[in-house]
Amino acid sequence: MRTVFFVSESTGLTAEAMGQSLLSQFETLEFERVYMPYINTLARARALVQRVGAAKERHGVRPIVFGTMLDDEIRAVLRGGDCLYIEMFDTFMGTLEAELGVRPSRLSGRSHAITQPGSYTKRIDALNFAMSNDDGVRPENFDHADVILLGVSRTGKTPTSMYLAIHFGMRAANYPLTEEDFERSQLPDAVMRNAQKLVGLTIAPERLHRIREERRPGSRYSSLNQCQTDVRSGLRILAQLGIPVLDTTSQSIEEIASHVIEIFKQYG
Amino acid sequence: MRTVFFVSESTGLTAEAMGQSLLSQFETLEFERVYMPYINTLARARALVQRVGAAKERHGVRPIVFGTMLDDEIRAVLRGGDCLYIEMFDTFMGTLEAELGVRPSRLSGRSHAITQPGSYTKRIDALNFAMSNDDGVRPENFDHADVILLGVSRTGKTPTSMYLAIHFGMRAANYPLTEEDFERSQLPDAVMRNAQKLVGLTIAPERLHRIREERRPGSRYSSLNQCQTDVRSGLRILAQLGIPVLDTTSQSIEEIASHVIEIFKQYG
Repeated sequence: MRTVFFVSESTGLTAEAMGQSLLSQFETLEFERVYMPYINTLARARALVQRVGAAKERHGVRPIVFGTMLDDEIRAVLRGGDCLYIEMFDTFMGTLEAELGVRPSRLSGRSHAITQPGSYTKRIDALNFAMSNDDGVRPENFDHADVILLGVSRTGKTPTSMYLAIHFGMRAANYPLTEEDFERSQLPDAVMRNAQKLVGLTIAPERLHRIREERRPGSRYSSLNQCQTDVRSGLRILAQLGIPVLDTTSQSIEEIASHVIEIFKQYG
Repeated sequence: MRTVFFVSESTGLTAEAMGQSLLSQFETLEFERVYMPYINTLARARALVQRVGAAKERHGVRPIVFGTMLDDEIRAVLRGGDCLYIEMFDTFMGTLEAELGVRPSRLSGRSHAITQPGSYTKRIDALNFAMSNDDGVRPENFDHADVILLGVSRTGKTPTSMYLAIHFGMRAANYPLTEEDFERSQLPDAVMRNAQKLVGLTIAPERLHRIREERRPGSRYSSLNQCQTDVRSGLRILAQLGIPVLDTTSQSIEEIASHVIEIFKQYG
């Protein structure tokens, strides 16, 4: 076991994203992951180096530290630690500075701070919109949505809507496909008049069966038979209406969301 | 104006996080940002290079491409483009491989795929929990929460709860502080018996006033006077009960969430 630290002078979310991505290339290894945001004083940097040393003692291998530090002195302290220090800002900042011909501000925490109030407000508004337009509760609001996800119960509509809102600032609504829709072979007017915003979600019936079983064990709703019928009916109506469909069976909400963005070729 | 591309063979979220972070150091410059996930074939890589060339023509400066590509051939195509190509995986992979003594899998899309079903399920469960425990609707569920955010209306409890759940897999509930609590100078038993999970949120009254005004313009609820009273009463009860407090006035939900994680020293 090796300890990995994600460190930063502010939230540490960038160091974490990049570090986790790199580590995911070494799936056979196990890591102890330590998230250390706000290492923004020399005292904190020195305490971190102590902790790095202790982790080295404990596991017998030197830890890896993924950092995005802007302060030269703090970086020097970390470099002195008994670790492999992978500094992600420092590596690229010189190249970028040369290309752009502008000095970096060296202010920490800019990437997750509210530096562009407009785009931040947009994300929060999108999240509020997604929360109050979950599960098709207010179809009249579909006119104000950027995207409307359609699918039978438990295909991933809700978490995907939340992610689209929180990360991409998309006003995501969702509408559950039900037997009523299948019988009518048609969707409500509020859905249809927003045809260009629609994305369908589907899922393998076996997977849907397992997900629904956790929710309502032993019910008709959760039975494999019902799941097969629902998925088939859902796919049929989506195909009839020419709505693009994403299969969520083995995809994370991040993956589904980025496919949605790909469909719309729209961002930010 | 310069065009910036965030590209990847899969979701592109890592390239985006790192690229946006680096760019945030050059706040005085304006960029056109293009998000290009799923550049996972040579044909798509070549089409991207075309697009890069067109952006160069349009703006007269070569674009910057932030990438996390694993395929040697795709990377070679991008390197041939008329751009500054900042390849973030390639830069660090050799160092990591040497340190770990294991070859990277070179499978793309591992970082946002469901590679660890346990931790993915935990995040989705946490999100469902956060959504059904918003605004203190089911205090009996506080026993199952990892964190309970307290604050008067519109201090950022809901979006922070969603972010804590979706990003960190924390089962975040929240409880709105109201006049009833202030009059009793006490919080409900369901809150108090989970004292170790509590984090208070506060905000500058002027900012709260502006936020509430957007929601209910001209109301007593939104008046500066009421906002001042609410914030003061909220801070008083939080102090009385010894609950740690975060000021959300100028913080993004990412920043508030990472402060919450810092308080609990808990992660993943």
